[in-house]
Amino acid sequence: MGRWQSGAEGRLVQAAYELYLERGFDDVTVAEIAERAGLTKRTFFRYFDDKREVLFSGAPAFEAGVVAAVVDAPADVAPIDAVVAALVAAGSGITAMGEDARRRQRLIDTSTDLQEREMIKMAALAAAVADALVRRGSPEATAGLTAQAGVAVFRTAFERWVDRDGAVEFAPLVHQALDELRTALRPDGAHGPVGPPTDGVRHGNR
Amino acid sequence: MGRWQSGAEGRLVQAAYELYLERGFDDVTVAEIAERAGLTKRTFFRYFDDKREVLFSGAPAFEAGVVAAVVDAPADVAPIDAVVAALVAAGSGITAMGEDARRRQRLIDTSTDLQEREMIKMAALAAAVADALVRRGSPEATAGLTAQAGVAVFRTAFERWVDRDGAVEFAPLVHQALDELRTALRPDGAHGPVGPPTDGVRHGNR
Repeated sequence: MGRWQSGAEGRLVQAAYELYLERGFDDVTVAEIAERAGLTKRTFFRYFDDKREVLFSGAPAFEAGVVAAVVDAPADVAPIDAVVAALVAAGSGITAMGEDARRRQRLIDTSTDLQEREMIKMAALAAAVADALVRRGSPEATAGLTAQAGVAVFRTAFERWVDRDGAVEFAPLVHQALDELRTALRPDGAHGPVGPPTDGVRHGNR
Repeated sequence: MGRWQSGAEGRLVQAAYELYLERGFDDVTVAEIAERAGLTKRTFFRYFDDKREVLFSGAPAFEAGVVAAVVDAPADVAPIDAVVAALVAAGSGITAMGEDARRRQRLIDTSTDLQEREMIKMAALAAAVADALVRRGSPEATAGLTAQAGVAVFRTAFERWVDRDGAVEFAPLVHQALDELRTALRPDGAHGPVGPPTDGVRHGNR
C-alpha cells in the first residue's frame, strides 16, 4: 500500500492515489502525480517504472512477508496449511487498512491495465511461494500446484472481503474459500457442505 | 499457434517464429518480421498489437474451444471434471504439434515479457472458464476457484510435457497433476500416493 510512507516515494504514492480517485486512473499523467507531490517526473521514475506500479508499491513487502512465513512454518505443518496461514497473516495486514484497501482494489478493478498488472503480481507471488515450499522440502511439482491453489484461495477471499462493508475478519473468508476449493475438487464431484470426502467411489461403503 | 495459417497473418506468424528462433525474441523488431513476411509494418499492426502477441495468435481459438467444451459437458459431469476434460481436449491439440509446441514454449520461457503475457492469457482463460461454469449452473465463487485450479493443473501438466521428449500423451499428465493437487489439499496434509482421503481427523477411525 505504502500510503503512509514518508519521503519522496510516500509522497508520490499519496499524490497518485488522490489523483486516481479524483479523476480516474486513465486520465492522470505521471507529470501530474509528480507535480502534486512537489517533485519532478525524473524523481517519479527513480521509484516507479510507470503509473501502474505506484498502486503496487507494497507488493515486494507483502511477498517477502508471505515467503518468510512459509519458510518459517514448523516442519510438521502441511504445505497448504503453511501457505494459507502465511496468506492470512499478510492479507490481514491489508484488510486492517479497511476502506483504504477496498478503495485501492476498486481502483484496480476500473482498469484492464491495472488488472493485468495485478495478475502478474499474483503469478509472481505464486512462484515465490512455490519456491519457499521447495526450500521447506516440498517436491517442485507439488509446490507449484499448492502455491497456485493457495493464491487462488487468497484472491477469492480477498474479493469477498472487498465486496463486504465494514470490519470483516479476513481469516474465516480464507478458510471458507479453501473448504470450497476442496469440495470443488472432490473426486465424486459432490457439492454439498464439506464433510468426510469419499474415496472416489460414488455411493461406496465408508 | 497459427504457424500454418495462410494469408498475411499466417505469414507474419511464420516469419516471427523463424526470426525469434534464429536471433532470440529481444533482438527482433516488428519491421524485420514484416520484411521477412514480405509485408509492411502497418500490416503487422493490423493483426497484432506488438511482437509478443504473435506468439499467442492461437489463444482466442484455444480459449473458445475450452469454453465451448465446458458449456457443452453433460449436466451430470462435475464442474472440475468438465474443466479438466475441456483442457485435455484443447491441450492435446497443442501437444499434437510436437516439437513446434515445445519450441514455442521454450521461446516464451526465454523472456520475462513473454512470460508475463502468457500469465495474462492464462488468467483470462481462467476467467472465461469460470464464466462458462456459471453458465452451466455453478455458483460464481466456486466457479472461480474450480477454473483457477483447472488452469493450474493444465499449466503443470503442460510444463511437464514440454520437459519430456518425443511423443508423450497429454491426458495422463493432466490427470496426474489433478491427483497431486487433490493430495496437496487434503485436510490432513498427507503426501502419500492418492488413496481414500481422511475426514480431516488424523489417525481417526474410518
